Order: sequence, then C-alpha cells, then structure tokens
Amino acid sequence: MKKQHLLAPGPTPIPSEALLAMARPILYHRSPAYEALFAHVREGLKSLFRTEHEVLMFTASGTGAMEAAVVNTLSPGDRALVVVGGKFGERWAELCQAYGVEVIPVEIEWGKALRPEQVTSALEQDPSIKAVFVTHSETSTGVLHDVRALAEVVKEKEALLIVDAITSLGVTEVETDAWGLDIVVAGSQKALMIPPGLAFCAVSKKTWAAVGRSKLPRFYFDFQATKKSQEKNQSPFTPAVSLVAALKEALDLIQAEGLEKVIARHKRLSRATLAGVEALGLEPFAERPSPAVTAVKAPEGIAPKEIVKAMRTKYGITIAGGQGKLKDTIFRIAHLGYADESDVILVLSTLERILSELGYPAKLGEGVRAAQEIFLKSEG
Amino acid sequence: MKKQHLLAPGPTPIPSEALLAMARPILYHRSPAYEALFAHVREGLKSLFRTEHEVLMFTASGTGAMEAAVVNTLSPGDRALVVVGGKFGERWAELCQAYGVEVIPVEIEWGKALRPEQVTSALEQDPSIKAVFVTHSETSTGVLHDVRALAEVVKEKEALLIVDAITSLGVTEVETDAWGLDIVVAGSQKALMIPPGLAFCAVSKKTWAAVGRSKLPRFYFDFQATKKSQEKNQSPFTPAVSLVAALKEALDLIQAEGLEKVIARHKRLSRATLAGVEALGLEPFAERPSPAVTAVKAPEGIAPKEIVKAMRTKYGITIAGGQGKLKDTIFRIAHLGYADESDVILVLSTLERILSELGYPAKLGEGVRAAQEIFLKSEG
Repeated sequence: MKKQHLLAPGPTPIPSEALLAMARPILYHRSPAYEALFAHVREGLKSLFRTEHEVLMFTASGTGAMEAAVVNTLSPGDRALVVVGGKFGERWAELCQAYGVEVIPVEIEWGKALRPEQVTSALEQDPSIKAVFVTHSETSTGVLHDVRALAEVVKEKEALLIVDAITSLGVTEVETDAWGLDIVVAGSQKALMIPPGLAFCAVSKKTWAAVGRSKLPRFYFDFQATKKSQEKNQSPFTPAVSLVAALKEALDLIQAEGLEKVIARHKRLSRATLAGVEALGLEPFAERPSPAVTAVKAPEGIAPKEIVKAMRTKYGITIAGGQGKLKDTIFRIAHLGYADESDVILVLSTLERILSELGYPAKLGEGVRAAQEIFLKSEG
Repeated sequence: MKKQHLLAPGPTPIPSEALLAMARPILYHRSPAYEALFAHVREGLKSLFRTEHEVLMFTASGTGAMEAAVVNTLSPGDRALVVVGGKFGERWAELCQAYGVEVIPVEIEWGKALRPEQVTSALEQDPSIKAVFVTHSETSTGVLHDVRALAEVVKEKEALLIVDAITSLGVTEVETDAWGLDIVVAGSQKALMIPPGLAFCAVSKKTWAAVGRSKLPRFYFDFQATKKSQEKNQSPFTPAVSLVAALKEALDLIQAEGLEKVIARHKRLSRATLAGVEALGLEPFAERPSPAVTAVKAPEGIAPKEIVKAMRTKYGITIAGGQGKLKDTIFRIAHLGYADESDVILVLSTLERILSELGYPAKLGEGVRAAQEIFLKSEG
C-alpha cells in the first residue's frame, strides 16, 4: 500500500468536492440547470480575476487561451515584445511567430527575473509595438516576474499587456482591473484545483477595441462570439460541462477560504519549501521565486531525474524535473492549488531521505525543522 | 422525486464506469501511469475509427477538431466544396471562410439527403477544389448523408474528403481506411459516452501530404506537433487527463459490447423511435434518418418547444428542440451512446402523454406498441 501524492505544477490535486461533481450525471448544456451553473461560475471567475469585465471561457488547455489572446488582438506583420525567460515565455514567442506576428524578444537568463526597465527601453525604441507578452509565474524556472511593475510601465503606452497567469492566478496577487492588465490568461488545472480542459481570458476594455481592429483569422477561439454567448450563460460550442460543474465547486471553496487567505497560504508554503531546501544546503534556482513552485538546483553529482524518479517510485510522490535546457539542472516542487502544510512537510522529509540514500550529506530532519519554523511564525 | 433522463444529441448520458474514473485522483500527464493509459486509449481509438493510422486527440469541443481539419490541410485562397444541409454543414462553411478558404456550397434542403452526383458534377466543373467537407450525421436535421457513396466519388479526385463524424462514429459504419476518408472528426460527448472536452481527427496518408503543403497558420491545433507527441504517448499541451481516464473506460465498454453490436443497437433504437412517432401520426423530418437522433415534425398547432419544455419540466426528460430555422418546426430525440430500449420506450410513452395533454389525438400506447414490435423482431 502506497499513498500517492501529487506535487507537480499541474495538473494539481483535486478536492473531493470537485471530483464528486464530475461523477454526477452530466447536464445538457442547453438547459436552465446548466445556465444557472454557468451564471454562478461567471461571477466566481470575475471575483477571482479581480475584474468587472467578462472572463471568457474556452474548452482547451491553457495554451488554447494563449492562442486566443494572440489571434483576437493582433494582425499579420504586427510587432510584439515577448518576455522570454523560460519555456512558457518561449511559447508566447512561438505562438506569435506561428501567426506571422514579428517577435521582439526581451531575453532574460533562465532563473532571473525581468527588470521592467528592459521593457520601457524596448517600447521607447519602437513605438509601433502592439503588445507586450509576459509570463507571470514562469513555471519552467520557478520565477515570478513583477507584473505589477511591468503594468506601470506599459499602461502609459499604446501596447496591450498580455499576461500568462496560468500558475499565478489564485496563487499571488493578480489585480486585472486595478493594475490595468489587458488580457489575463489562466487554466483550470492549477490553483483552480480542477482537471485540465478549461482555459480563460479576462479581457480589458482597451483590448476589446484592439479586437475590433485585429485581422488574424480565428473561429474556435473567437472572443466576440464567446462573449456574446456567455452573456446568455452559454458557450458558442459545447463546453466541457463536467469541468464547469467541478469549477463551480472549486470557486466556492476559494470563496469560502477567501482569496487573500488562499494567496497567503501559497506564500507560506513557498517560504517554508524554500527554507527547507536551503536548510539542506540546496540552492533555489529562481531569483524571484514563484509561490506556485519551488525550483531547486540538484546538488553536484546528482541528476535531478534521479531525485524525481526516487520520489515517484519509492515514495509515491510526483514532483517535476527540469524542462528543456534545465533538464539536468533543477527539480521542481509545486505547492499549488489544493496544497497545504502537510504536503511541504512530506516532500521535504522525503527529499532528506532520498538525498541521504544518494550519498549527499543531508541531515535528516533539518529541512522539516526549517519549514516548521516558518509555519510557527506565520499561522495559517 | 423525479429521475432525470438525458436524450439530447450530446452531451449524452455517461456510464458509471466513466463517471467514476473521473472521480479518482488525477494523474500527472508526464508520468508512466498516464502514458500507459494514453497508449491504451490510442489503440482503442484506432479500432473505433477503423484505421491503422494515428488518431489525433485535442483538448477541445468537436468544433476545435473541425478547425484543426481546416487549418492543417488548406492555404488561403484555396477552394473547398462544402455540403450544406443543416447547422453543422454551415459550420464547415463558416470555418473555411474564417480562414480565407473560398467555399463552394453544395446546398441541400434541410432534411433532405445529399445525392453524391451533386458533388461529382461540382468537382468536375472545378478541378482546383482542394477539399470536400461533409457532415456525416447532420444532427440539426437528423439526416445521415451517404458518406460511403460520396467517398467513392471523391477518391478518384485530388480533393481530400473531410468528414464530420461527430454524431456518426460509433453509431453507424464509419470505415476510415476502407472507404478512403481523409479526415474523420469526432467528439467525446456523443457515442463515446464521456463528457465534452476531447475531440479527434483520424488522418489519412493522403492528408499528411497535404499537411506539408498547407499554409494556414496554426499552433494549438497543429497536426504535426500532435502526432509527434502522441507517438511518445504524450500531447503537446496538458491534455484533459480526467476525460482521457473516462475515455479509456468508454472504449473498453465499446470493445466489450463489440463495435458491430453497438452500431446494431443504435440502428434498432432509431428504427423503433421512427416507428413509434409514425404510429402516433407524426412525421419524421429526415429523408435518410441518422441512427443517432430522430427529428420529428411537431404536429400542426403545437410548437416544438412546448413539447420539449413539458418533457423537461413535467417528466425530467431532456430532448432537443430545432436549431436555427427549424426552431418552430421540429423536435429531436437522441438515442445516442449510452442509450438502450428503455430510453425509447420511456420517451415514446411520455410523448403520447404530452401530445394528449396538448390536445393532439394521440392514442396512448400506440407509439410504445410500434417500438415493441421492432424490438421483438430484432433482438439485441
């Protein structure tokens, strides 16, 4: 008998309320019962995204909503500034290029954080730039970029600020309206605590004006058709009804805990994880760590995949290795969504054991002790 | 206490095996356990689509896979023949137009079936046509177009034959390889008996050559990236893992019953429903009825939506009204996916009661009697 523990940065564990909602008989989407459900979800999404405007929902992975953000706002030959400091920043660039948008990359060393003045100077050099794309929480490096400061810079310009908040929404502050974010993209399988398959775009007034001018082709991901349909509590195409039923439960759980407390919980888990790995003599990888996921440099002589594999096969714990060029450098521990202190204690204690088994001089109990100290100092 | 019965043409009822699979803790998609699951699903899909080639899976509604079929095969300015005889044929036309593909419509009166010679003459008049789009089972009218005969016509030409089989796969014969279908599109919430959120494209060898030449932009729905990833039992973007778990159960159920028997069951339910409504003096709408859904003309003086509403509010039965221009003409009873004789008996008996209540001279028991006779003659 081995209990399974999921601490990867998405899909994240699903609370039983949401799991059981999916096990109920399915609703017909063109029915009053579904429309009432979706009306409730629409309000919950607005509250979570901190916006008064409609949050558009797509049946897709998060990348689908990223594509929607590109194809609804830009035209072929447009120029876009893309913050590239990890795999998901690269995805924005690839998406833009696939649609004939010229990418001006703001290159950041993987693991480092954006300095907003890099964007200021790029925007000043080229006022024709139509949009700035950024990854709020760059899951591949564990870095949280300072989107609030970036928004201060961009809001004086014509360009739209388009934010991948897939692993930051519900994890740290994402103030869509107050900060002036033009599109905020999110996915269902992260802090929303439900399975992958739904993705979202919060859309500002400034963006809607750009949508009218945009000439890129689109159909499935069309913002206008989606908005028109949602205003009648519907979707243009059959939505992932079961996931919407689960989403209602997850939004209710977030509301019951309170968004501020949800964010505080993620920060506490992140601080404890960082303290724990540091107490074991390991080095966090991210200059500005995301509260969603802690990226850790594997110690000299130990391959990250050995740690990941031992976690999974010997201890039933799923964490993530490094992606792309970080494959042989880091491993990643998520504390995202339906996660609490017990997860952090478990993963740190297991890390201690695995490191010892692999011949690294980890003092058993030291990582856990450091995490406990954080928890004692900041009760949830 | 009122039991709910879902007889709409998608989402369709979900067997408990699939519902409970979704209620299990979610798998991390980059794990051996998920890869084993998806390997099993890939084989099941090939068997269901009757193809030796890879069946591509997208996290999307069926329309997403329709979009994938367009953007991976055509280039701006290409000409395509589109069979338009209902709302879903119109969708092919709208999709092509959204991507700058010139549509040559083959207009069919709604409710009538395609005569394949209409396509022959159009293809002969214009040999530059790159693709023929058809809706196998046109859910909006209840018509099953003769795709087998159409394939005979198209396979001698250069053009690709692209088939929306969303409500025909697993309902009637769809012989992807044997008939030479170039793309077969399906969705999860129909005969596959799981919730909406997954969509599929079976892709022929001839299509892959066209993919190489196609210049329409794409990223999320890219065939090549999807195929490359699936060959490693992965998806390019986080797939709807819970739905894949449910799909495994549904494919196993179909295999256990046997695809031939599944198809025979749908045909029997369709014949019984048709016989039942005719015995009540009502007229089926479709010239060539689809075994997925029976479209019925509402009797003179009774609005279809009155029947649909009474079914739902008084009897807990969800059927569908007419779509678009058929809104005031027909109602539709699905017998699709996880449906059996009990559903047909129930809906016919309830129809008898509702018609009587609405003042139509329906003889109670006559519809059920006609259905029973069909069932007696063709044991499942």
